Amino acid sequence: MKKSIVLIVSSLLGGFALFAQENVRVDTASNPNLRSPEVTAEGKVAFRIHAPQANKVSISGNLLRDQKFGLSEDAETVPSHLDLINNDGIWTITLEGVKPDLYSYNLIIDGEETVDRNNAFVARDVKNVSNVLLVPGEASAFFAPRDVPHGAVQSVWYKSGFNGKERRMTVYLPAGYDESDKRYPVLYLLHGMGGDETAWSELGRAVQILDNMTAEGLIEPMIVVMPNGNIAREAAPGFDSRAFEQPEFHLEHTMDGTFETWFGDIISYVNDRYRTLDGPGEQAIAGLSMGGFHSLYISLSKPETFGYVGLFSAATIPSDSNEIYRNRPDKLKNIFDKTSPLMYIAVGKDDFIYSHTQELRRELDSLGLPYIYNESGGGHEWTNWRQYLIDFLPRLFRK
Amino acid sequence: MKKSIVLIVSSLLGGFALFAQENVRVDTASNPNLRSPEVTAEGKVAFRIHAPQANKVSISGNLLRDQKFGLSEDAETVPSHLDLINNDGIWTITLEGVKPDLYSYNLIIDGEETVDRNNAFVARDVKNVSNVLLVPGEASAFFAPRDVPHGAVQSVWYKSGFNGKERRMTVYLPAGYDESDKRYPVLYLLHGMGGDETAWSELGRAVQILDNMTAEGLIEPMIVVMPNGNIAREAAPGFDSRAFEQPEFHLEHTMDGTFETWFGDIISYVNDRYRTLDGPGEQAIAGLSMGGFHSLYISLSKPETFGYVGLFSAATIPSDSNEIYRNRPDKLKNIFDKTSPLMYIAVGKDDFIYSHTQELRRELDSLGLPYIYNESGGGHEWTNWRQYLIDFLPRLFRK
Repeated sequence: MKKSIVLIVSSLLGGFALFAQENVRVDTASNPNLRSPEVTAEGKVAFRIHAPQANKVSISGNLLRDQKFGLSEDAETVPSHLDLINNDGIWTITLEGVKPDLYSYNLIIDGEETVDRNNAFVARDVKNVSNVLLVPGEASAFFAPRDVPHGAVQSVWYKSGFNGKERRMTVYLPAGYDESDKRYPVLYLLHGMGGDETAWSELGRAVQILDNMTAEGLIEPMIVVMPNGNIAREAAPGFDSRAFEQPEFHLEHTMDGTFETWFGDIISYVNDRYRTLDGPGEQAIAGLSMGGFHSLYISLSKPETFGYVGLFSAATIPSDSNEIYRNRPDKLKNIFDKTSPLMYIAVGKDDFIYSHTQELRRELDSLGLPYIYNESGGGHEWTNWRQYLIDFLPRLFRK
Repeated sequence: MKKSIVLIVSSLLGGFALFAQENVRVDTASNPNLRSPEVTAEGKVAFRIHAPQANKVSISGNLLRDQKFGLSEDAETVPSHLDLINNDGIWTITLEGVKPDLYSYNLIIDGEETVDRNNAFVARDVKNVSNVLLVPGEASAFFAPRDVPHGAVQSVWYKSGFNGKERRMTVYLPAGYDESDKRYPVLYLLHGMGGDETAWSELGRAVQILDNMTAEGLIEPMIVVMPNGNIAREAAPGFDSRAFEQPEFHLEHTMDGTFETWFGDIISYVNDRYRTLDGPGEQAIAGLSMGGFHSLYISLSKPETFGYVGLFSAATIPSDSNEIYRNRPDKLKNIFDKTSPLMYIAVGKDDFIYSHTQELRRELDSLGLPYIYNESGGGHEWTNWRQYLIDFLPRLFRK
């Protein structure tokens, strides 16, 4: 059978594309499928692209952050791009000292940003499409899927009381959920402005982190709920009734109390549909950036609900646009009186939100309220948020 | 609050990226965010890209199939690419007569394939990343999400008896599934070689088609199970333990009886976990290309299971590599004796698999066994498979 397939492949299609989907590119001398990116040794990554007519090819993205390629040893600057070298129409660069992590990058050909077409892995971030690259190592050990029992990932729609529309969210159910009648604790995990209900499961690698850490017994099996906190759309681009309208930032209703006010719809949906534990010792809320802001005020406005609150580079900018944001000190005292939550605050030294984090810390200190503080290097970026999640998860549901 | 955000945006970041994810491209004169693609009128689509240093920019993809741009009126040839016109560094083309459908396309800059960076919607097909474009109209009316009750989409893992590994599949549960104790009929929907458990839900638009047709009352609410039929991998690229290994065709075990032999694991998992109806009048199986081949032989090897069999451009190449494929006429008689299935056969006039479809039809005719035959234009392509699904679904579970 295999032989006959190969024969038909060769005879009918001149290669590669039998029974394929559409538009499979054939590998030819003028359009070679090069190996790119290639991790050739520890921290060493080679990129290659065929572009014989180009005058200049560069690479950009956060994988350049530790590169001082062509810069002096003590240079402080992170290069915005690095140039590839042309060898007979094939442009190459090999980066060294690339730390284990998940990166995004683009190639820039004659000044125009594009993707590395040899790398089939891409991710959309707000409106930009970039390639993704995993550099393996200790810091990224949980990011890749492994042969372990896998949780289920669901895209479900709940009805929001805000405008009566259905909104999409992602729900992770731990491995084994369907094999017993056991109930599970719940983490609500919120994205940043510009993100959506797919942010934590895609660039955040939350599914792989949860599967792998659960398999190693490092964390309690838990349900993780990842809603969409951008009220202006019902779902990620391509999934709501705006269909293929190009994604943009939508500031309306992002931080005006709307999401916090209607968050109860999400909790009710989850408790109705899944086998949850719903005491404060079994419910956590955490988020990055705008999602940290949301997490703080949702926990304060429901002071008997959450025993764990995680603020990752949280945009805790003081606000009085909504009652929910006012009288923060009183509300902080109230929640600590009621559930004495484990409050986890993490921020990078270079984060532009750093001063707001310090302001929140001073407020908690002056009130004598305890919290865990994790100050990392780096800024407002997924590199930090993934590590904060890895640091936060083992603390949950084990008080 | 909004005002203070805007202020911080302007002051701290010079625009656009506050609380965003990483790597948001800023719109500048040297890197403008152009509107591309833009459907400007019925069947008219404009593409624009900024590339002042380029010598030539072209567009390729299946959206050219009805274009005779620059060709004579009666030309039979479909152009492989069309050139854009340079106007002060911005290259443009406006196609006319583009029929309603979902298309994939790439831009080719100085001979090198790339994506349209103004279009955030991309899809991977085997190993190629292309942009996608929806041209609205009657034929594509079901492809875009609408404000209707939405089904849930799940990625779940079942254990395969083949090698004891977990394998990933996509399960669609109709809107309202969680609101009652109702049981639902099941369609098993299989992809082609090179596809995976995401093929029907992504390029196939099965989720939107099901949501929209169910909302209009055109089809019975049903559970749809989309497994991964490429035994060499456990899941789509990026989701199994090969992680970010670049995707390739894997011919091993695709059509040697393995998938058919272990298909019972999938049926058992589904009947154990979901509220299914499991009589032959309530179970259907259908697939495209290799998945049509699988559908035929799975139905024949479980002759009391499926009351509906859909063969979409099915790769029904005769084979004796496995007992499952032998004595087809006897097995066809047997299944018609037992469940008298509604057999639906669809193929395009230009499909390279056309002669095999005719061979199957002659076999059924000579045995006096009934079937529905839908011969369309076109070839081995998603344009046909989506329409076959739309034509097939209303016939299910209404005998």
